[in-house]
This record gives sequence, C-alpha cells and structure tokens, in this order.
Amino acid sequence: MSTHLSGKARTQFLAIKGGERYAYRRFGGGPGLLLLLLQHFTGTLDNWDPALTDALAEGRELILFDNAGIGRSSGSVPTTVAGMAKHAAAFLDGLGVDTCDVLGFSLGGMVAQQMVLDRPTVFRRLILVGTAPRGGEDIMHLEKPRLAKHLQDPSNKGYSVLQKIFFTLTPSGQAAGASFVERLAERKEDLDGVSGPEVADAQMAAFRDWERFTGERFADLRTIRHPTLVVNGVHDEMIPVVNSYRLVENLPNAVLLTYPDAGHGSLFQYHDSFAHQAAAFLSVTSESAVY
Amino acid sequence: MSTHLSGKARTQFLAIKGGERYAYRRFGGGPGLLLLLLQHFTGTLDNWDPALTDALAEGRELILFDNAGIGRSSGSVPTTVAGMAKHAAAFLDGLGVDTCDVLGFSLGGMVAQQMVLDRPTVFRRLILVGTAPRGGEDIMHLEKPRLAKHLQDPSNKGYSVLQKIFFTLTPSGQAAGASFVERLAERKEDLDGVSGPEVADAQMAAFRDWERFTGERFADLRTIRHPTLVVNGVHDEMIPVVNSYRLVENLPNAVLLTYPDAGHGSLFQYHDSFAHQAAAFLSVTSESAVY
Repeated sequence: MSTHLSGKARTQFLAIKGGERYAYRRFGGGPGLLLLLLQHFTGTLDNWDPALTDALAEGRELILFDNAGIGRSSGSVPTTVAGMAKHAAAFLDGLGVDTCDVLGFSLGGMVAQQMVLDRPTVFRRLILVGTAPRGGEDIMHLEKPRLAKHLQDPSNKGYSVLQKIFFTLTPSGQAAGASFVERLAERKEDLDGVSGPEVADAQMAAFRDWERFTGERFADLRTIRHPTLVVNGVHDEMIPVVNSYRLVENLPNAVLLTYPDAGHGSLFQYHDSFAHQAAAFLSVTSESAVY
Repeated sequence: MSTHLSGKARTQFLAIKGGERYAYRRFGGGPGLLLLLLQHFTGTLDNWDPALTDALAEGRELILFDNAGIGRSSGSVPTTVAGMAKHAAAFLDGLGVDTCDVLGFSLGGMVAQQMVLDRPTVFRRLILVGTAPRGGEDIMHLEKPRLAKHLQDPSNKGYSVLQKIFFTLTPSGQAAGASFVERLAERKEDLDGVSGPEVADAQMAAFRDWERFTGERFADLRTIRHPTLVVNGVHDEMIPVVNSYRLVENLPNAVLLTYPDAGHGSLFQYHDSFAHQAAAFLSVTSESAVY
C-alpha cells in the first residue's frame, strides 16, 4: 500500500488576522477542482485514511482541515455546526479559495451542508458520507449499548476503538477495520495528537443541536441545488443510513450510494471503490449529480 | 441516438417440449456474461428502451424475454411471481443457459429474486431496478390518485401513459419521458403488440400475493449471497424507494444506487449513467457487490 502523498504532507498553519490559527495539510494535484475534506467527531488531520486520501489526491489537490480547537488549530470547539461552518469559511477565505468541492464525513458532512446554505457559491459539488440532515434521527448516541460497549472497553486503546465502532463486526468488516487502523498508524511524526474530552463534549452538544429543527423538516435541503453524492454504510450504528435516505429524498440533485457489510467508516472500508466513485462523480461537468 | 443493435434484433421463439413457446430477442456481444432482462408490469419485448439495451449489448450478449402469456409467448400469465419464475427457468433450461447475470425491472426484479432463491446456481450477479422484496409495501397500487389520474386519462394513448407514470412531472423528468417514448416508437415491425387487461389482472394478482409474507419478514433475502446492485428513482410512485432500502438492508451483498428527480423508469431516464454503472458492476470478478 503506497501512501506516499498523504504521508509526506506536512502540516501547515494559516493565521487569520483577529481570528484563529488553523492547522491543515494540502497535497495532491491533477485536473480536478480543489477538494476540501471535513472531518468526523473528534477526528483530526491524522484520522484521514491515507489509502483514501492518496487515491483522491491523484486527480486533484486536497485540503485536510482542523476546525477551531481541533488538533493544532487554536480556539475553542464550537458547540454548534453553524459555529464550525463559520470557522471553515474563514479558513477558506483566508486561504483565498473562491470555489472548491467538499467531502464531509459525519460531523464534517453537517458542516458542509451548513456552509453551502450560508455561502452557496463557495462549493461546486458535495460528497456527504455517513452524515445526517438537520432534524435527522439517532445521531451519534454513543450511550447506545452497541456503541457504549466498545467505547467503555479499556482494551480498545487509541485508534483500535475505531475498528469496533466504524466497521461491522463480521470477519470482513473487522479485517477492513484492522487494516484501516494500521494505515492510520503509518504516520509517526508531525502528528496532531488525540482529541480530549472537551472536544468530544462540545461536538456532542453540536450533534444534539443538529437533531433539533424548527419549521418544516428538511425544507433547507430543498434549496440546495448543488450536485451531491451521498454515501453510507448500510449498517451504520453511529449515524444510521435512514439519515442518508432523508438527504436524497429532499436534496433535489443527489445520488445515493450505500455499501453492504459496512458501518460508519464505509469510505475507509471500501477506499478503492469510494475513491473511484467519488472521482467519477467529481469529474462530471454538467449541473446534474448523475454520473 | 444509435439504437441499431436493439432495432435489428429479430424476435425468436423457443418451444419447450410439453410446455410453452416463448418469444425472445438475443443480441449483442463482448467479454461480459450473458445478461437476461426480465420485464415490468404489462411490458413486452418492445418495452425495453433501445438506448439502454444498445449500451448494455456493447459489452455482453443480452436476452429479452416474454414470460408466458406476454407478447407472442404462448400460455397464460401466472398469478404468482413463483409461477413466472418457473417459466423463466424453463426458458433458460430450454436454451441451454447454465449461468448468466440478470437485470430484473419492477415485476421482473421480483421474478429474479424468486429465481435466485429457487435455483441459486443459475445467476452470477443480479441487478434489481424499481422493485420490491416479498413483503414489500405499496407495490403497484394503481388506484392511488397520483397514478389513477394518468391511467384513466383518455389522452394518454399507447406508450404516452408511461411518460406520466414512469417519470417525475418536473420539466426534466417529462422531457426524459418524452424521449423514452420516442425511442420505444422507433421499432415499426416485428412487434409484440400491447398487453391486454387479462395480462394486467393476472400480474396484479401476483403483486398482491408478493406483498404478503409468512414467517420472519425479509428472511429469504438474507440467504441470497449473490452480488446485487439495487437501483431506484428516489420519487418512484409505482414501487416506492423504501422497498429498495429494505432490499439492501437485508441482502447481505448489495449496493444501492438511487437517482434524483426520477420515478419508476430511472433506468430509462438516465440510460447512459445506468448502463455505465451496470457495466462497471457486472465487470467485477470478485464475490463482492462493491464496484
């Protein structure tokens, strides 16, 4: 497994005047539009699977981004998705990025939706993986026995808990999870470190807020005309696939792809397929999500 | 639009000793495995979109098949999916086909599911479009106002009713529907003719039977290990997309693809994309549905 592009990418920092200093990594190249990657609950720059980011980086430049208070970004973690979206927009503005594509995974997919509502011209195409619309259901309830069992097991140290909660418990799911954890561990220096409980608490507050809605449920989605690819593992315990159903039923221009025998980490489990499908979707130049 | 392969395909007949005489068309070629196409409610050989079948026929041989009592096949239309599956299996046996892939659309997708349960070794890969598992919900209730309105409108003659009930009523959906109807009308001779009310009545009885289940709902699906691609228009009024959700949640090895702004005829509306996705799925040689 060659993960040279991701592995060699050094962490950079962008200080916004009167604002925060954000950590990011920028690498890759090719004919595609710049792709911003927005990360999952408690995830840092180090939580992007290098097998996936290497494959994506072969066709376009990528930016991995630490939101405020995550990894080596300064500031405190917002307790709302809207607050996170403001930081990500400030980062793009500071970098001088006028337009890009975005891949938002889990919490990152919520931030992407909020950003496209706030600033529709910034994004061309959206990829939303293992995420939920505002007003979605059963979003990251880590107290559920199926998840709590693994999170409270002291033998699950470091990344190994991700093998249990991002992947199905079938032999094939766990084998894919073990490979994922090995790939994350390839990076030995220039690391972000692990997020602490203050990150988790603030992000969990944002999930609870995101479950609430006012007015007509999912009405915001109908205003997003951007071509969107929605991806979900069909057995996702963290953000169940029903949330992806609601996304494509209400987004006017969205294709859904679900993966079998996969949980929250479907994009990492099937990194070859996902990178191939994502590249095919991103390469379309029409206004349609269909690829 | 070149539809030369489908347009030139002559109807052939296969008489089974002591059984029926089945009408079919066989055309195309390439490296792929033979693909059997099983048709929708009241549909005949003439209801396959030549834009789709031409694209599929570029990579493999196709067989379009009229089940008993349909088009120019002899016999009476069975009132159960199981009865239709027996005819299709007798046809394949008579033709000497040991193994093939199958694309089942709507009613044809139910027949494909039943066949793979009855004779698992016959099929290698399944594509199930706009269909439902046994025990599915809201299957072809043509009495619903949204559908009845178009079916009872005398201005909808011949294929033009399909434009209204297979496609969304958006400008883009109706434009795609009009193009579809034009493509169906390209064939001027060697036609099956239109199915009569006795076909519709028998097939409707089969739908009502298919909605019923005994024992654990969807348990049969969990025994189907075949790689399966499930496709549905997200606004399908005839067999709602929720049935495709249940398929991929219960089939152990199935990928779901949903299309936006599309109803029952999503495979015809997006024939380029569908043919491309189907070919990519069928070209996989592993045991996984993921492509």
